[in-house]
Amino acid sequence: MRHEHPGPALAADGTRRARIVVLGGGFGGVYTALALEKLLEKRDDFEIALVNRENYFVFQPMLPEVISGTIGITDVVSPIRRLLPRTMLHLRDVEGIDLERRRVPLSPGFRPHTDELEYDHLVLALGNVTDFRGLAGLPEHAMPFKNLGDALALRNHVIRCLAEATIEAHDVELRRELLTFVVAGGGFSGVEVAAELNDFVRAVLPNYRGLRKEELRVVLLHSQERILPEMAEPLARFAQRILTKRGVELRLKTRLAAATGTAAVLASGERIMTRTLVSTVPSSPHPLVERLALPKAKGRVVTNAQLEIEGHPGVWAVGDCAQVMTPDGATAPPTAQHAIREGSVVAHNIAASLRGGTRKVFAFKGLGKMGSLGHRSAVAEVFGIRLSGFLAWWLWRTIYLMKMPGWGRRLRVAVDWTLDLVLPPDLVQLRVGGSRGLAREHFEPGQDVFRQGELGDRLYLILSGEVDVIREEAGENRVLARLGPGQWFGEMAILHMTIRSASVRCVLPLDVLSLPREEFGVLAAHLPDLRQRFDALAAERQASPAPGAPVAVPLGVARGEHAVAFRE
Amino acid sequence: MRHEHPGPALAADGTRRARIVVLGGGFGGVYTALALEKLLEKRDDFEIALVNRENYFVFQPMLPEVISGTIGITDVVSPIRRLLPRTMLHLRDVEGIDLERRRVPLSPGFRPHTDELEYDHLVLALGNVTDFRGLAGLPEHAMPFKNLGDALALRNHVIRCLAEATIEAHDVELRRELLTFVVAGGGFSGVEVAAELNDFVRAVLPNYRGLRKEELRVVLLHSQERILPEMAEPLARFAQRILTKRGVELRLKTRLAAATGTAAVLASGERIMTRTLVSTVPSSPHPLVERLALPKAKGRVVTNAQLEIEGHPGVWAVGDCAQVMTPDGATAPPTAQHAIREGSVVAHNIAASLRGGTRKVFAFKGLGKMGSLGHRSAVAEVFGIRLSGFLAWWLWRTIYLMKMPGWGRRLRVAVDWTLDLVLPPDLVQLRVGGSRGLAREHFEPGQDVFRQGELGDRLYLILSGEVDVIREEAGENRVLARLGPGQWFGEMAILHMTIRSASVRCVLPLDVLSLPREEFGVLAAHLPDLRQRFDALAAERQASPAPGAPVAVPLGVARGEHAVAFRE
Repeated sequence: MRHEHPGPALAADGTRRARIVVLGGGFGGVYTALALEKLLEKRDDFEIALVNRENYFVFQPMLPEVISGTIGITDVVSPIRRLLPRTMLHLRDVEGIDLERRRVPLSPGFRPHTDELEYDHLVLALGNVTDFRGLAGLPEHAMPFKNLGDALALRNHVIRCLAEATIEAHDVELRRELLTFVVAGGGFSGVEVAAELNDFVRAVLPNYRGLRKEELRVVLLHSQERILPEMAEPLARFAQRILTKRGVELRLKTRLAAATGTAAVLASGERIMTRTLVSTVPSSPHPLVERLALPKAKGRVVTNAQLEIEGHPGVWAVGDCAQVMTPDGATAPPTAQHAIREGSVVAHNIAASLRGGTRKVFAFKGLGKMGSLGHRSAVAEVFGIRLSGFLAWWLWRTIYLMKMPGWGRRLRVAVDWTLDLVLPPDLVQLRVGGSRGLAREHFEPGQDVFRQGELGDRLYLILSGEVDVIREEAGENRVLARLGPGQWFGEMAILHMTIRSASVRCVLPLDVLSLPREEFGVLAAHLPDLRQRFDALAAERQASPAPGAPVAVPLGVARGEHAVAFRE
Repeated sequence: MRHEHPGPALAADGTRRARIVVLGGGFGGVYTALALEKLLEKRDDFEIALVNRENYFVFQPMLPEVISGTIGITDVVSPIRRLLPRTMLHLRDVEGIDLERRRVPLSPGFRPHTDELEYDHLVLALGNVTDFRGLAGLPEHAMPFKNLGDALALRNHVIRCLAEATIEAHDVELRRELLTFVVAGGGFSGVEVAAELNDFVRAVLPNYRGLRKEELRVVLLHSQERILPEMAEPLARFAQRILTKRGVELRLKTRLAAATGTAAVLASGERIMTRTLVSTVPSSPHPLVERLALPKAKGRVVTNAQLEIEGHPGVWAVGDCAQVMTPDGATAPPTAQHAIREGSVVAHNIAASLRGGTRKVFAFKGLGKMGSLGHRSAVAEVFGIRLSGFLAWWLWRTIYLMKMPGWGRRLRVAVDWTLDLVLPPDLVQLRVGGSRGLAREHFEPGQDVFRQGELGDRLYLILSGEVDVIREEAGENRVLARLGPGQWFGEMAILHMTIRSASVRCVLPLDVLSLPREEFGVLAAHLPDLRQRFDALAAERQASPAPGAPVAVPLGVARGEHAVAFRE
């Protein structure tokens, strides 16, 4: 059922109002709508609709402060409704863009049907997305850092790691993994995340009984020779000195190649054992933009100097998803300050095309760059002047506070910063969201999927790779079987006992699908066939526990080439 | 693998220290540990371990303020670590209590093994739990209101309902459901939730385009003749007047009987159509307490006057899970003020049994009762004096602010309250937690599970009850089949198309298990048998779309008595 959203309402004078649809609620989208709302004050001849998944605008520069709780969780974001009172907000995913029919299909809400939004003018402000494709294990095990949900998830995870390290004091290996935090990517975002994370774990350490400062490792991986490639070299060197002094381990000329649940795997093959890997690096064009048949450069939509897309009148692009040329022939960099100015040019030009008048050309050159290094230090290049340390930090705070949209938020952030001077960092772990259901996991050779004697909590299906099933008896390890794609394992502990009767170790890089015991139990209870198959499998495996014995898999499951169980 | 947690460390003088294990981090548990920590200042002869699922203590009286965002999300809770620096905090579920071996098995953390905690003294402070058993549909569709997660979930859900009501302006039925909010239970908790919820939705309404005040309904259900049975009648009547004046609809002598995803079903059979049902009513003993072989009254553990359990030296109970007699022969009510005093008595008595000295008897009589009515009004009975309105509200705020543990929190809450005077309520919707995986759902007769023409997003298995499969053709409704327990439906849209080819309507009260399309797709892709069975089922159903045609279910699924598809 496709619900066509009703067309624009008529204006006060009875004429049809144009509808401007803005896709995306980042700097580009929100500032376009803000500028459009101002134009409505003079003449009420169009209506604005903004489509965004969340009901808030994230003030990205302050997002890393959520990690340490310096800023209240919701203070770093502003409700879009309040910023844009005259804009209709659609909290939806954009499911496609139909340039022919000038319509945008939206994802369903409470009822499972699609909405369609008709437009006269369309502003693409979709930004870019974190994209871990092509790096084994990153989609499953690396944490992105782009929106408020990511920041909160990281904060909660870090607090949980500290807590677990105090409880599992006797498990040296686990404790080391828990107390190592790896951030990949030495651009602004990676540096700010590493700095905040480092400040936070060191500040709250005294609250965790038995943890020592020397056990904490915050590692920043960067592929080039120095961090902050966006900045002049002396400032980058300054940043490196400050971070090192505060205990961040810099690993330069180091590239992340893969990830597992317990390690960051470097291109050199080295593994840094950790339960926390944040990756700020790979960003790709938004999948919707990728699918659009529009002129593109490096995945970004190419606009003309007026920010309209050639050959597509009424379609505009701003922000990180747009390739905008400045008059001097350079490309506008993907920063907030550029997106903000692009938004105001687009708004002016849309009004010009509706009401008549001359269009503007985008000609902003940028004011400078700033990056926070945490705890009262920063680096900045403003109007050609280079600053570092406390002064840069003061400038950073002042400028960003003033740039935050809305006085309410500014007041809240100012209060947060003041309280931060007298109160210790907050360490509430907001446990939210449910348990992992059906999940993909990645393992690297030598790594244990599970160990003999552990509780059986999940059932696994091999998608690619190989594992050995190993039983330890009388101090000796015997390989019971080698399993490959299409084969299941872990069913015995799930079906009959709670304790794993053997270990399963990765032999070839392994991708598995895993199902929690509870979900499997429910499915098996209502699908007797399924249950019978797994019972038969478990019985056969239990009957032939000799080393290298064949493991028949009477599952009717798709099997890959490696699936034939081997016999010595 | 059972990891025995290492025994207590030795004291400075080389003697073995006793270990006191406190189960639960509510008022009873935290105040017991606080009092124990004070006793450690004199002599370091025992250690304290506290087991709680969350790393924070919830200041319950202020929890409803999280709904409106008056208090910052994390300000209503305090990190237990900071309140109790000398206590070892175990963020775990208690899996059992072994009174014989004096050990408490705990749930696993990052690694799947169980920890065991040995104790010399055990303090049961497990409180009670929300228990929806026996009320059809409540476990699936009613929202509890006990901890911070519940308060946040409710807040986000309410914000989402308002947003969806503005977007789905054309769907009158859905809009009415979205703008109706039902709270069941007219005790302190229910009244405070209804009051805060009502204040909040009315305050933020102007931010939601197209919503009118008259469309909002906040309904409070209460089974007795008046609300607040804990209070004197004149105060309860005052509360009723205030709530009614502010727009809350009071439904007295009304009992909630069941719930579906779209309705609160009353004992009279009446259905209040709503997408938001909060139930504060049913609370049961903690399941762990339920399983313990200890003397109990109304499910609570009976203690002696010293709060120890007769016949079990070294086992103590405090708070809502304890049945404590006061010297005048009454039972101590389950309030925070009683739990706090019980904690200090238990701490004293444990020290007395370790160090020698006389034990104390619990003899607290209670200071009074207070309940907030939102927006600067409250009711209170303090030292026998009855207060209502602004003065009671001022007293409520002052007393609770002073009772909050820790100066940091007090400062934050005082600042929150001050900002609340000048800033509008926050309306950020923190979307957290993943999608619904395998879920149970309840439907009542006449209700549609899905409708012809909707997108097919889930697959259903009938656990109990019956449905009709109905197709509308040329304006006529034809019943294609009746399905019962053990039968699946909804597979056609999932397997072959995206649009439902028929409606499914509940005939007898229905419990289903539903699986999202994505999860089914993954399972079907790797279990070809499963896929084939559903393909066959879909083919058969598609081949016989005649009204009343038999629907064979070649699934090998467990079938109940109603499962035989009927033929006219």
